[in-house]
Amino acid sequence: MDGKFIVIEGLDGSGKTTQLKALAGNLRALGRRVEETAEPTAGATGGLIRDALSGFTPRTGTEIAALFMADRVAHNVNPVNGIAKLLSQGVDVVCDRYYYSSLAYQGVVSDPEWVYHINVDCPEIRKPDLCVFLDLDDEACLRRMGSRPTREIYENENTLLAVRKRYFDAFARLEGRDRIRIIDADRPPEKVAADIFAAVREILE
Amino acid sequence: MDGKFIVIEGLDGSGKTTQLKALAGNLRALGRRVEETAEPTAGATGGLIRDALSGFTPRTGTEIAALFMADRVAHNVNPVNGIAKLLSQGVDVVCDRYYYSSLAYQGVVSDPEWVYHINVDCPEIRKPDLCVFLDLDDEACLRRMGSRPTREIYENENTLLAVRKRYFDAFARLEGRDRIRIIDADRPPEKVAADIFAAVREILE
Repeated sequence: MDGKFIVIEGLDGSGKTTQLKALAGNLRALGRRVEETAEPTAGATGGLIRDALSGFTPRTGTEIAALFMADRVAHNVNPVNGIAKLLSQGVDVVCDRYYYSSLAYQGVVSDPEWVYHINVDCPEIRKPDLCVFLDLDDEACLRRMGSRPTREIYENENTLLAVRKRYFDAFARLEGRDRIRIIDADRPPEKVAADIFAAVREILE
Repeated sequence: MDGKFIVIEGLDGSGKTTQLKALAGNLRALGRRVEETAEPTAGATGGLIRDALSGFTPRTGTEIAALFMADRVAHNVNPVNGIAKLLSQGVDVVCDRYYYSSLAYQGVVSDPEWVYHINVDCPEIRKPDLCVFLDLDDEACLRRMGSRPTREIYENENTLLAVRKRYFDAFARLEGRDRIRIIDADRPPEKVAADIFAAVREILE
């Protein structure tokens, strides 16, 4: 039986990393095999993206959207450790960010219609079984991020507001196509983890 | 005044390289400044594409289509030597292959509708002022390529037939949007060059 493909989304500071690890642990405790992954990937195209996000290699929003999509195709089809390969082996894949991030972040800095179609219509970009969105307003994100150094070109308050709005625009557009659960992340991590695991159990049955 | 953006397209063996140089020379003889360029570019994404086309790094047709599009955006917007920058400086840009090649080659190995939209609807992929297609049937291409070593994964007769058909499908679809001139390339190079230059002069007036 195929594994499940679960995506964790949210603004920076919303607790994605913590919750992804908690979810992977909960799934393993059920006896399932789980791979944790993230976008951008550790591959060559992912490296181009990280150099762009850090501002080391300046690129436009449209360039970055294009590279993210190319990286996402590679993430799906890599014959050794790609998402499709893992799922076909019965492994669950939990992924930190996916095309929802492109719709949210690149939808702000490029043409949102084009960003939508290059991702959602792509024959080699698989639809997740579940997308969990860790919702936190921009003030809470900035508060949590306060102790971290600035790492990326998109990190500022104005963009966070626009990105959160774009996330919700994307979810509205994908309603009926994608299974999306919005979870209030402004609570203790163990409560958030319990809600995520409950949403995931629904798709295991 | 902005420079002109002219693309030369055709199957491998159709004489693109020779004709691009002849056209650049003819434009310079008019006193114009000309830059010769090509896709994939010499940049980082172009390198990923060449490694894929050579078979050194296996990638699917959809991956390659995505990388070509990302490379094309970079080709347009590079702030130092990008197409937009050169044109704005009054320099003519003559380019060996552009999105017509993606529609023709990746349209065979990926979803042609998706390949069309990621390119033609992209806000940072400029429409050329003129596309010249050097038309040669697949037998003539193979005859001309006979003396060259096989270099790329797409080089075989079966694909050439499909690619030529896809080129014509793309030109039909782009009629009224793009200015495309189809030139019989199965003639002496100087006759082909004269026809190309005549088509280019029309857009200089």
